[in-house]
Amino acid sequence: MHVAFVQFNGITALDLIGFYDTVMRLPRFSAVQLDGDLCAISPEACDQYGLRLTSQKVMPNLSAYDLVFIPGGLSAQKVADDPQFVAWLQTARTDAYKVSVCTGALLLGAAGFLAGRRATTHPGAYAELTPYCTRVVPSRIVRDGNVITAGGVSASIDLGLYVVELLTDVATVQRVQRSLDYPYYRPGLVDSDYPRA
Amino acid sequence: MHVAFVQFNGITALDLIGFYDTVMRLPRFSAVQLDGDLCAISPEACDQYGLRLTSQKVMPNLSAYDLVFIPGGLSAQKVADDPQFVAWLQTARTDAYKVSVCTGALLLGAAGFLAGRRATTHPGAYAELTPYCTRVVPSRIVRDGNVITAGGVSASIDLGLYVVELLTDVATVQRVQRSLDYPYYRPGLVDSDYPRA
Repeated sequence: MHVAFVQFNGITALDLIGFYDTVMRLPRFSAVQLDGDLCAISPEACDQYGLRLTSQKVMPNLSAYDLVFIPGGLSAQKVADDPQFVAWLQTARTDAYKVSVCTGALLLGAAGFLAGRRATTHPGAYAELTPYCTRVVPSRIVRDGNVITAGGVSASIDLGLYVVELLTDVATVQRVQRSLDYPYYRPGLVDSDYPRA
Repeated sequence: MHVAFVQFNGITALDLIGFYDTVMRLPRFSAVQLDGDLCAISPEACDQYGLRLTSQKVMPNLSAYDLVFIPGGLSAQKVADDPQFVAWLQTARTDAYKVSVCTGALLLGAAGFLAGRRATTHPGAYAELTPYCTRVVPSRIVRDGNVITAGGVSASIDLGLYVVELLTDVATVQRVQRSLDYPYYRPGLVDSDYPRA
């Protein structure tokens, strides 16, 4: 399982790291081979406060990846309007998992990956997501085929655990949860109601 | 409120970012002036998987900061044995908040900041923390004076919200929680029991 962790200027760092630091634990707790690259269209990406993350691959062909993960950020709508960025996302394989958290869903939408799909995003961005998908679902995690979208920022951890569950089993998820000291995820969270902040 | 976010090679990225991305939201939701620098003894810090974070300040005198935050990582015990790193931590002011998540507590301990204090860390590292403090408390967040320690990895978000609560009020914490889409924190969490992963 080869994962592209997409980053861009204006990302919310926790969107990215909550998912990244969860799924990257998988090889420690299972036989699943999983690795990944931080990918961007620029050599580094800054968050809205000035934190700088070095890109490991600059504009790689995303068809090399089995899962493409897209975080959100205050700049997501602007990035969704960037034809170069969107064309790059479209290099992902049709059969690859497309996974987003928060307003990363707008980028999946701009690339056309949500056409005919149910999806979710940060509760504050439901209206912006509406044009891109069949139905915005107010759940913390929504799966529609190989497209998995999650709620805002901290939902990135639940999303990572859901992907761990998808690739392994409940016992492995619980081991990863203990390593994260994260008591909150419940297996089977997908498409269910969820407490709101 | 000027915050030093300490980073080092071998950090757990979510330890750092869970706290950073929570407290950096404070100025958006309150009148509190809060800013911070990613600080290290090297120009960048890598996590255990190769993610590279650029340092904003290299070995600044930490006496310039009102709060020094230390994340953990698999390398924490090794870093705790580095005299240069420990001497640098000791430049923090006596009256500054010293805050850690996960095995960052071992670094606070190595710097002598836990002497005579109650503290906590990742549940898997209680034995390693014991020599540094008066008592290891199995809570998710423990405050003893100006020293605040938290449990493992994902406790970084709860810790950030606790610090937001400490600096503002419950209504502000709830606004930050909604922006993070994080329903799990409960005001008054400090020193209380907590569900375990």
